[in-house]
Amino acid sequence: MPIIEMHLMEGRSVEQKRAVAEAVAEAVTRTLGVGPEQVRLLITEHGSEEFSVGGVTAGRKQELAVMQAATSAKKS
Amino acid sequence: MPIIEMHLMEGRSVEQKRAVAEAVAEAVTRTLGVGPEQVRLLITEHGSEEFSVGGVTAGRKQELAVMQAATSAKKS
Amino acid sequence: MPIIEMHLMEGRSVEQKRAVAEAVAEAVTRTLGVGPEQVRLLITEHGSEEFSVGGVTAGRKQELAVMQAATSAKKS
Amino acid sequence: MPIIEMHLMEGRSVEQKRAVAEAVAEAVTRTLGVGPEQVRLLITEHGSEEFSVGGVTAGRKQELAVMQAATSAKKS
Amino acid sequence: MPIIEMHLMEGRSVEQKRAVAEAVAEAVTRTLGVGPEQVRLLITEHGSEEFSVGGVTAGRKQELAVMQAATSAKKS
Amino acid sequence: MPIIEMHLMEGRSVEQKRAVAEAVAEAVTRTLGVGPEQVRLLITEHGSEEFSVGGVTAGRKQELAVMQAATSAKKS
Repeated sequence: MPIIEMHLMEGRSVEQKRAVAEAVAEAVTRTLGVGPEQVRLLITEHGSEEFSVGGVTAGRKQELAVMQAATSAKKS
Repeated sequence: MPIIEMHLMEGRSVEQKRAVAEAVAEAVTRTLGVGPEQVRLLITEHGSEEFSVGGVTAGRKQELAVMQAATSAKKS
Repeated sequence: MPIIEMHLMEGRSVEQKRAVAEAVAEAVTRTLGVGPEQVRLLITEHGSEEFSVGGVTAGRKQELAVMQAATSAKKS
Repeated sequence: MPIIEMHLMEGRSVEQKRAVAEAVAEAVTRTLGVGPEQVRLLITEHGSEEFSVGGVTAGRKQELAVMQAATSAKKS
Repeated sequence: MPIIEMHLMEGRSVEQKRAVAEAVAEAVTRTLGVGPEQVRLLITEHGSEEFSVGGVTAGRKQELAVMQAATSAKKS
Repeated sequence: MPIIEMHLMEGRSVEQKRAVAEAVAEAVTRTLGVGPEQVRLLITEHGSEEFSVGGVTAGRKQELAVMQAATSAKKS
């Protein structure tokens, strides 16, 4: 330990995943005083219909934003 | 919070995911008295060999059912 | 399945836990078309120093709010 | 319960998943004295950039090993 | 990896926890061909109001059983 | 998102929990380019019999070390 699970939206690059793994391990070893080989990180990625806030999935939120933008454009 | 992780078998439609996200958020805000923007839901989907009950994966269970049906049909 | 993990702040009453369990199970069975006996819910409670948003734990946030209120009171 | 989540590197065969599901269920029912139908196992697979030890993803570790082998070969 | 999370009802003895840890590690190393030092197991225990099936918490289920037994005893 | 679950051994101080929360949030916002208010961290603590490596719980490992030390002391 520590064992860390990180939930992310799909679509991060390999570079970003490597950068966040390195930065989190550094943050944890520095503040908790554990050896780096103790820190394990698991990333799980979620699609836009597999994450929601307040009952609205990320995918639906994006659709609503597009529709709203289209309506605004028509009016002007 | 609340932060909710939901494990499902693969294969739900976008409509079902949006419906369950909305219904769960409504259920949680109503019974716990939290604002909707506090409720976060993460869905993780599992294939038929990644879920098992009593040591039998969903995929193997389906195979066994098909084999049993074939044997029954032969006998009759 | 579905198997659901719900993370909550510590301090909900037994009545609230029973109410949310019932409401979530109803929401899930209705929208996904599964039998109620398939729905399993696990609640994990977290103390005020075990949950943080943007690097600030709930406990520290509360402390900061109290300090700010005290400062405001002094000034007026 | 017990409800078990198992995180694995991607790439196990169907046979391996069935074997581990069966063996874990047997291990749990034997030692905890629960019925097999109570044991639920969820497998989540992670790609080589979604798992890291000490800040180094499995993918990067493999790359470093290949580079090191190439350098050693050159020298000799 | 594998990294395993096991959710249990509260109340297992130290002996049971050690036995299940040993048995699960043996099951996993044998079927997946990994070294024992790779297998990490995390146990999380849940109280009787923190686990529910079909919307009924384990605590409420027990209450209902007691009430039903009392009613049956009265009738006879 | 990101939503992060961190499993720790029991016994960290409030200061350590606040420090790791702050450091991890900083690491994640810097490398993934998300706003701090998006980063949620959940800590779950595990007792010495709820964590094991290779089938040996942390509690049992400690016991074995004490016994070994006692045996070594006797011999010398």
